[in-house]
Amino acid sequence: MDAAEFRRRGKEMVDLIADYLENIEQRPVYPDVEPGYLRSLIPEEAPEEPDTYEDVVKDIERVIMPGVTHWHSPYFYAYFPTANSFPAMLADMLSGAIGCIGFSWAASPACTELETVMMDWLGKMLKLPEDFIAGTHGQGGGVIQGTASEATLVALLAARSRAVRMILASDPQRPETGITSKLVAYSSDQAHCSVERAGMIAGVRMKKIPTEQSDKYAVQGETLRRMIQEDKAAGLIPFYVRTEHTHPLLQYSGLRKYSPPCHVSGPALYVSVLLVLHICIFVSGNAEKIWMHIDAAYAGSSFICPEFRPLLNGIEFADSFNFNPHKWLLVNFDCSTMWVRKRSDLIGAFKMDPLYLKHDHQESGRYFYTDNSLFRSLKMWFVFRMYGLKGLQDYIRKHVELAKEFESLVRADQRFEISADVVLGLVCFRLKGSNEVNETLLKRINNGRKIHLVPCQLSGQFVLRFAVCARTTESRHIREAWRLITQLAEEVMQELPH
Amino acid sequence: MDAAEFRRRGKEMVDLIADYLENIEQRPVYPDVEPGYLRSLIPEEAPEEPDTYEDVVKDIERVIMPGVTHWHSPYFYAYFPTANSFPAMLADMLSGAIGCIGFSWAASPACTELETVMMDWLGKMLKLPEDFIAGTHGQGGGVIQGTASEATLVALLAARSRAVRMILASDPQRPETGITSKLVAYSSDQAHCSVERAGMIAGVRMKKIPTEQSDKYAVQGETLRRMIQEDKAAGLIPFYVRTEHTHPLLQYSGLRKYSPPCHVSGPALYVSVLLVLHICIFVSGNAEKIWMHIDAAYAGSSFICPEFRPLLNGIEFADSFNFNPHKWLLVNFDCSTMWVRKRSDLIGAFKMDPLYLKHDHQESGRYFYTDNSLFRSLKMWFVFRMYGLKGLQDYIRKHVELAKEFESLVRADQRFEISADVVLGLVCFRLKGSNEVNETLLKRINNGRKIHLVPCQLSGQFVLRFAVCARTTESRHIREAWRLITQLAEEVMQELPH
Repeated sequence: MDAAEFRRRGKEMVDLIADYLENIEQRPVYPDVEPGYLRSLIPEEAPEEPDTYEDVVKDIERVIMPGVTHWHSPYFYAYFPTANSFPAMLADMLSGAIGCIGFSWAASPACTELETVMMDWLGKMLKLPEDFIAGTHGQGGGVIQGTASEATLVALLAARSRAVRMILASDPQRPETGITSKLVAYSSDQAHCSVERAGMIAGVRMKKIPTEQSDKYAVQGETLRRMIQEDKAAGLIPFYVRTEHTHPLLQYSGLRKYSPPCHVSGPALYVSVLLVLHICIFVSGNAEKIWMHIDAAYAGSSFICPEFRPLLNGIEFADSFNFNPHKWLLVNFDCSTMWVRKRSDLIGAFKMDPLYLKHDHQESGRYFYTDNSLFRSLKMWFVFRMYGLKGLQDYIRKHVELAKEFESLVRADQRFEISADVVLGLVCFRLKGSNEVNETLLKRINNGRKIHLVPCQLSGQFVLRFAVCARTTESRHIREAWRLITQLAEEVMQELPH
Repeated sequence: MDAAEFRRRGKEMVDLIADYLENIEQRPVYPDVEPGYLRSLIPEEAPEEPDTYEDVVKDIERVIMPGVTHWHSPYFYAYFPTANSFPAMLADMLSGAIGCIGFSWAASPACTELETVMMDWLGKMLKLPEDFIAGTHGQGGGVIQGTASEATLVALLAARSRAVRMILASDPQRPETGITSKLVAYSSDQAHCSVERAGMIAGVRMKKIPTEQSDKYAVQGETLRRMIQEDKAAGLIPFYVRTEHTHPLLQYSGLRKYSPPCHVSGPALYVSVLLVLHICIFVSGNAEKIWMHIDAAYAGSSFICPEFRPLLNGIEFADSFNFNPHKWLLVNFDCSTMWVRKRSDLIGAFKMDPLYLKHDHQESGRYFYTDNSLFRSLKMWFVFRMYGLKGLQDYIRKHVELAKEFESLVRADQRFEISADVVLGLVCFRLKGSNEVNETLLKRINNGRKIHLVPCQLSGQFVLRFAVCARTTESRHIREAWRLITQLAEEVMQELPH
């Protein structure tokens, strides 16, 4: 295919995409296929001679679409939102054509530079503390990662590297493997499974901080303090705390929940002070030695609205912060934005300097040198400019309103109950009654394929999650979804003993 | 921007892309900007109200293009090729619109299924051993990763997990951190820096196997054997060997280079047998206990041609294999394909099973559940079908011929020398003389901005790398590049004492 044919096929593809997205709600949101369905629909081997483009396009409907879960259908309420907007798609087309690999400044300066500036733009939209903004002279700044899981891992590794460095500075004879085996990281027991995985990858002990329903599943400072004291007494080295929205609920716990039962002022201060006390055994004269990473993968986008920004209070005590514009800020996947207070902490943990990557502008520490950066900042640039801050705020607020609307419908029905506070775009709810009746209801809902939800578990209860996801979801879709849910609930309750 | 406007803007973008790629050779391949150039060209903050699309598009030429290194210019000979083809771009457009996140089969069955089948297609094109093909009943199979660095890390972590599991099986009381701290992995001293980084991330000792110019920088079995014996005597646990093309040369070392100075037959067998002997101290009754990962990031694409396939002989002894179709097989970034002999080794190392990812078709082990899979297999499907195997083979062969043509030009000029065998699409060459004269020559070449090359170091010598990269490179570009190089060499040699 040459450029001339691409002009024709590309325009056909633009129409195909527009058609797909304009008519997506007519498709069953959840596919009706069995595992292995696709293999029999296509040849067992690649063709020797080229196929025609017409055949390839025909196969999109024949082979692919029957097996697609339509994440951008306004009837998709499962998992969490994943962004999809026309400006982001246009930017991605351009990014694919430029097709540069931004593993150093010289490998494509525009790629590194736009990323640095876009991360500043977004950091300012979130009103991050000045320390996290790169500017021309800052020591902090942002970098795009693929996913929040990746950011968690990167933060954990940087923290590990910093902890080992600090301990070696005061005790140079201590073997490095001996240090690593004593490190212990902490994370909420409501955290996403990727946190546990990050601990496995980094080879460090990862402890879960137990939470209680009565505390709305938020980590309590006193619990954390006790764990750290016990671990220290056992000869371990606390070095990492990860906070997050409690994932199954998407209920952003808020750093205030760490606030102490003692009289230290400032929201997250307690965590910082406590951990510094412990680490200061190894390093003195430095006030913050525990790495605090805040992950607000979903909730982060809402912080561009002043009314939701208080959820991030306490950020001033964090070393790193991450959220996913590819979830709720209209920037297509992947775009997980991560800021650190000190770029050198990240660069130091991963720096490699082979000759084939050296260039004339090798100013260490000025930029992050990422490994596999596409031109992902282009889509941030297109989206921020084509929506404007106000357009993005309106978008967030609309989703929160739709969730509140759904909450009202649930609350107005005596058969149902709300299982967790509705803070942003997620409603956790269930039929009053057994787990069995709720499991049956969910199965019935998904088998209908008109709307799609997934469950979560809260203190042993099987709960249905209703996440407002698609860009095009309107009030009428919410009401239609509720109509379907109540209709199926009726059926289930008649069939099953209540 | 609504769908109607996207139809218009999308078609304009298709033309913009076609224009860019058709006229790319008129642009300076390497940009003439200083670090920080971009920040002053755009506002310091995102706009409150939307910008117009016209302004955004105008800024592509004003802000972005001056800072782009044009990887798809036929005058780009730096680093390594990165793929760019029209079928892949069309597939990426579709992938962006479908915009599903394939972290489980249910999250979008077509995404998981097409990936599994495309990995089989490609595995068959490479004539991989049957064990690596998933089929309907196989235990092995392929999965798409982002980069070869990621694949290296994944293989290392899976190997670590397997080694720990095996040791614990025979010695359940042994503390896990005590095992990890004794593990030692091996890699060539010519390996890409990402290998060292993978060791850092996994927190395991990584030793470099020294290589010699006289052996063409290939790892020697005897050297490896000696290192392993010494480490074992010191109480360490050898568990991982990574082989690769020697990256600065892109000279695929070939597994035959491991062939032993003793009488064991079979190319890579020596490595396997040797390592098994050591591991069998902990686990008996199993013939293969060292994980062998083969990374052919660049060279791998060439194995679709029968004449280059012998470079991969020995694959039958490997546990995992990886290469990057996003380098040399016309599948746009990112698409790094990794096969394992046993899917359970990977799944076992990373498995997490939270309720919110459970679904009715939870058949463990049937598929890989990747964390952040876009619909990347779509571009494999489009490219394989639109080129056909023959078209892809022709493409590889043409690049190798162009490299040979450049090699002939160098060899015909007495002032230059070839620094390493030309096996595929890379020519390592230099002016006979000092490093200084070669450094000056390279600087002069890149400052001209007409062609772009990067250096490497071979046994203390500063060497120029000439990699055939772009899809549209023709003989005339090669000859023009050589004309420029010799013209600049003339200048440099007149200025500097020879």
